[in-house]
Amino acid sequence: MENLYQGRISAIRQLMSRKGWDAVIISGSDPHSSEYPALRWKQVEWATGFTGEAGDVVITADHAGLWTDTRYFIQANEQLAGTGVELHKTRVPGQILIPEWLAEHAFSDSKDMVAVAIDGLCQGVSAVADLKNAFISAGREESSSESSSFRIISAPDMLEELWEDRPIIPQTPIITLGSDIVGEGRQSKLAWLRAEMAARGCDAMLVTALDEIAWLLNVRGSDIEYNPLVISYLLVSCDSVCWFVKKGNAMDTETRDSFSELRADGIDIQSYEDVSFNLQSQFEDGLVERLFVDPSTLNYDLYNILKNSQFSASVVEGESPVSLRKSIKNAAEIEGMIEVHEADGLAMEKFLYWLESCLADGIAISEWDAAVKLSGFRAEIPGYRGDSFETISAYGASAALPHYVTPRIGAPMLEARGLYLCDSGGQYMNGTTDITRTVPLGPCTMLEKEDYTLVLKGHIGLAMAVFPRGTAGCQLDALARIPLWHMRRNYGHGTGHGVGFFLGVHEGPQDIRQNFKRVAIAPGMITSNEPGIYREGMHGVRHESLVLCVEDECNEFGDWLRFETITLCHIDTSAIIVNLLTEAERQWLNAYNARVYEQLGPKLPRETAEWLEEKCKPI
Amino acid sequence: MENLYQGRISAIRQLMSRKGWDAVIISGSDPHSSEYPALRWKQVEWATGFTGEAGDVVITADHAGLWTDTRYFIQANEQLAGTGVELHKTRVPGQILIPEWLAEHAFSDSKDMVAVAIDGLCQGVSAVADLKNAFISAGREESSSESSSFRIISAPDMLEELWEDRPIIPQTPIITLGSDIVGEGRQSKLAWLRAEMAARGCDAMLVTALDEIAWLLNVRGSDIEYNPLVISYLLVSCDSVCWFVKKGNAMDTETRDSFSELRADGIDIQSYEDVSFNLQSQFEDGLVERLFVDPSTLNYDLYNILKNSQFSASVVEGESPVSLRKSIKNAAEIEGMIEVHEADGLAMEKFLYWLESCLADGIAISEWDAAVKLSGFRAEIPGYRGDSFETISAYGASAALPHYVTPRIGAPMLEARGLYLCDSGGQYMNGTTDITRTVPLGPCTMLEKEDYTLVLKGHIGLAMAVFPRGTAGCQLDALARIPLWHMRRNYGHGTGHGVGFFLGVHEGPQDIRQNFKRVAIAPGMITSNEPGIYREGMHGVRHESLVLCVEDECNEFGDWLRFETITLCHIDTSAIIVNLLTEAERQWLNAYNARVYEQLGPKLPRETAEWLEEKCKPI
Repeated sequence: MENLYQGRISAIRQLMSRKGWDAVIISGSDPHSSEYPALRWKQVEWATGFTGEAGDVVITADHAGLWTDTRYFIQANEQLAGTGVELHKTRVPGQILIPEWLAEHAFSDSKDMVAVAIDGLCQGVSAVADLKNAFISAGREESSSESSSFRIISAPDMLEELWEDRPIIPQTPIITLGSDIVGEGRQSKLAWLRAEMAARGCDAMLVTALDEIAWLLNVRGSDIEYNPLVISYLLVSCDSVCWFVKKGNAMDTETRDSFSELRADGIDIQSYEDVSFNLQSQFEDGLVERLFVDPSTLNYDLYNILKNSQFSASVVEGESPVSLRKSIKNAAEIEGMIEVHEADGLAMEKFLYWLESCLADGIAISEWDAAVKLSGFRAEIPGYRGDSFETISAYGASAALPHYVTPRIGAPMLEARGLYLCDSGGQYMNGTTDITRTVPLGPCTMLEKEDYTLVLKGHIGLAMAVFPRGTAGCQLDALARIPLWHMRRNYGHGTGHGVGFFLGVHEGPQDIRQNFKRVAIAPGMITSNEPGIYREGMHGVRHESLVLCVEDECNEFGDWLRFETITLCHIDTSAIIVNLLTEAERQWLNAYNARVYEQLGPKLPRETAEWLEEKCKPI
Repeated sequence: MENLYQGRISAIRQLMSRKGWDAVIISGSDPHSSEYPALRWKQVEWATGFTGEAGDVVITADHAGLWTDTRYFIQANEQLAGTGVELHKTRVPGQILIPEWLAEHAFSDSKDMVAVAIDGLCQGVSAVADLKNAFISAGREESSSESSSFRIISAPDMLEELWEDRPIIPQTPIITLGSDIVGEGRQSKLAWLRAEMAARGCDAMLVTALDEIAWLLNVRGSDIEYNPLVISYLLVSCDSVCWFVKKGNAMDTETRDSFSELRADGIDIQSYEDVSFNLQSQFEDGLVERLFVDPSTLNYDLYNILKNSQFSASVVEGESPVSLRKSIKNAAEIEGMIEVHEADGLAMEKFLYWLESCLADGIAISEWDAAVKLSGFRAEIPGYRGDSFETISAYGASAALPHYVTPRIGAPMLEARGLYLCDSGGQYMNGTTDITRTVPLGPCTMLEKEDYTLVLKGHIGLAMAVFPRGTAGCQLDALARIPLWHMRRNYGHGTGHGVGFFLGVHEGPQDIRQNFKRVAIAPGMITSNEPGIYREGMHGVRHESLVLCVEDECNEFGDWLRFETITLCHIDTSAIIVNLLTEAERQWLNAYNARVYEQLGPKLPRETAEWLEEKCKPI
């Protein structure tokens, strides 16, 4: 019997044959190239059952494949079992990405012309360009009458007719944030953006990335789970600002107030669907002459409408300047982030104390129970707006999946031995948190202790780093890995990602990983520091805190920067093999735990505080 | 009164005004983009007196400037004093390179058309492209009738008429190396290159980099000081190989024998000057259809001859594959390198023993005397072909210049206190060496000891590194810097460069420095490990050994590589602040010194061996 996903893939193949398509690409993203799409755009999950946060699917007549990275290999193998969908691994040596794979497998000798369908709404401009380049490199020609040529067909919402009860585009309440919270009014941000556009010889920018729009307008919504964003487009021109957003029929008070405030600030509010029509009118009326767009977040359909119009010459492509500016937090944002990290740390300590007490008292707790309890502690914090991502509550072998999804039903039970990994975070009106603590629940094996200690050495190595201005994350990444590397151990994910201010828990442009990205780590940036190690069937370790880049001294050797760890939650010392630590590492750890107790102890219930004092004792 | 260089710059300005040029660029390189040019092409030195190994000069009617990097700032300031030539600093934050500087300063409101003259023979294709791009970015147009347009005029050998007794193109004896020494015959290398060309859809390559030619043909010369190279071009096509080389009139026996051997291998030997004519004929006769060139080492004049001919469409530009293959030493080359490093280490130890004995006996030695003595010890080694670069013999404050040039006359005297830095190397028939040892000659200040120890920590950090296959040098660089960074100290040069096999002491494509180069450090590559620190007017420290990348184990976490230090010469322990070393660093150092004594001790004179045993005692 066909399972659910086999049936859906068959239905897609029938659609393909009806339309004359040889291959379709189902994108894992949305019309804004969001990392986390709203339910409506979880097309990959609908088609294959794979729930990972990164993955694209290709279906041909005789093959269905999912492309995803190291983080999701184990999960994909489990979730794809029985679907007939094959896993194609990315971010591994020798990887063959979708464009190259299709360039080899979509063509056959017997066909003159190959048609590849994409959902142009959910494919970014850059991804389609990669596809075309791969085909051309393989000697295929685009839409010619020659043999072995290809056509790329954009079929927006191609799954619409197959997907029963497909969710609509969400329309959640919209709030605005005052300058007291975000430190800079929207007029100031818009004025800055206009100057940036002028410097590029442009008189307007179409902002397509949802977090950039939220930051520019100082608005937040909850259109996407865990992401306080509003699905919309923003057109900023010399003397007008148009926000294209779902307005809904029965508007709530919060949104109505927000719209009034925005209108009072001269922002025109238009319907989400009108973006392309409105853009064309603005061109026609001469209101926009040279429009700046960022192809990395502009979808292919909208791009084509712009490029195929009579105004094609007036579209300038480049990297949005908003991303970098947004990553450099101002004083108010830093203050907010430090504040929420104290509150978040109190929730974490209450949670960890509760956890240990339950285990001591023999109370049965599953991974799911723990995750729920932790969210409960966070929910008590004023300004809490939800979690910043789905809590990874992973005991023992569960933690070997870096992006484990804790099952609601049948979650493994915690036991008083080995390691428990909890990666979680909150969204608050004045900041976003992201923290991982790996906690020994009882006796640990020597391998668990070694892994725990080596990962901690890497975490401390990065936390202690001092570096000259201009240093990029890829130039620091090895500091977090070298203790593991010395023991021939490693982890398959990045060491650090940017974190937004009451925005995405992942944001660019900086990161700390083994790439060649030139973005320098700059004062005001907040980045995660999260080395790990994962052993299938055994355990996983990750130690994650957020670090704020701050200015240090300036001397004859350079202009020095360093990190300040802003996450506040003790690091358990019981699983550490102390003689693996250098003196400097030991001192850092003791100082960190002392600071945690000093700041959090007085604000915790007496029993919890006493427990924390014990936990923070120097080693 | 005008000094020598003021006079020469005036003469250049007269030439400019006669020719109608608004600016000239004098290149520091040769027709092959060599890092070290032969005397004939030391045009920057002739014009300005600056002897650094990297630097270009721009002269306009009212400005003369030298562009050079951090390594040469102090030297340039000294050598340019009184010449009227201004130093423009490169590799510093906010640097303005020649193209950008000219784009701003070469143009004035009163001129419609600006003419910039370059020596097209000594300017690489890429450099000229950068120049044009900068002008175009600044809104200038090329050779149009519009105002504020520009022309780039190639004036090969532009200084010829001003430079009396300019050296001719050198023609030194040419030798060949057998497969027993280099591990691979030229036929095998040429067959490989042909396959590489075929994969690029090309049927020929014009090899323009001198070290690539020497490697491909297994030939060596001594046309350039310290570099065993032959000034030539090499055309490798499907069924023929043409070597364009100065043949001279009175040919020596070695060269004659080499030519016979090459001819017997089917290699046609043509005159150096005939390269462009011959290339055109080959195109015309249909012998070459698609010619591959590497614009990074092809000069602008030759490029123009190719591009402006009727065969322009048949020139394919790309990165030469020879550079990477050459960098990965085969078994014979590795064996040779290890052998010469033992011999070179014996010379170093004899030298250091002699040095210490002289100081103990109160014998006066200058930096120059020391350099001469060291070359003398190397010259005793069988297969010695000269030094691999000019020895940097630098005592005290002299060593604060990373690329100090020890003066023949009036060199500072060594004293029995502080630090002496000696950076030197040899060219041998079976390898090339490059080593820096910083030696305490007596009591050292606390700052000297700290710097000595911190740089050593960085050196050891890199030497001990284990890393997954695919890791690039820029991802390892921080390991050598972090001990200095923690103390807000740094060095302004790279940490490591590739080293050739009886070839250039600097070779690509790999390096270890703060860039974003994607070239992975691969097994068989030999790279220097040379962190340092420099304090103007005080002292300099550098610890340099060569490391061979080797395969380590392969496990679930990856395919592991590590370094083996092949340089053999003890590291002095007397200036080390032992408690700044971690246990692992101390152990590495003791093991290294023990290995040095074990391998070199038995081959040294008894007294030297006893002295070395003492020096290698564990700390």
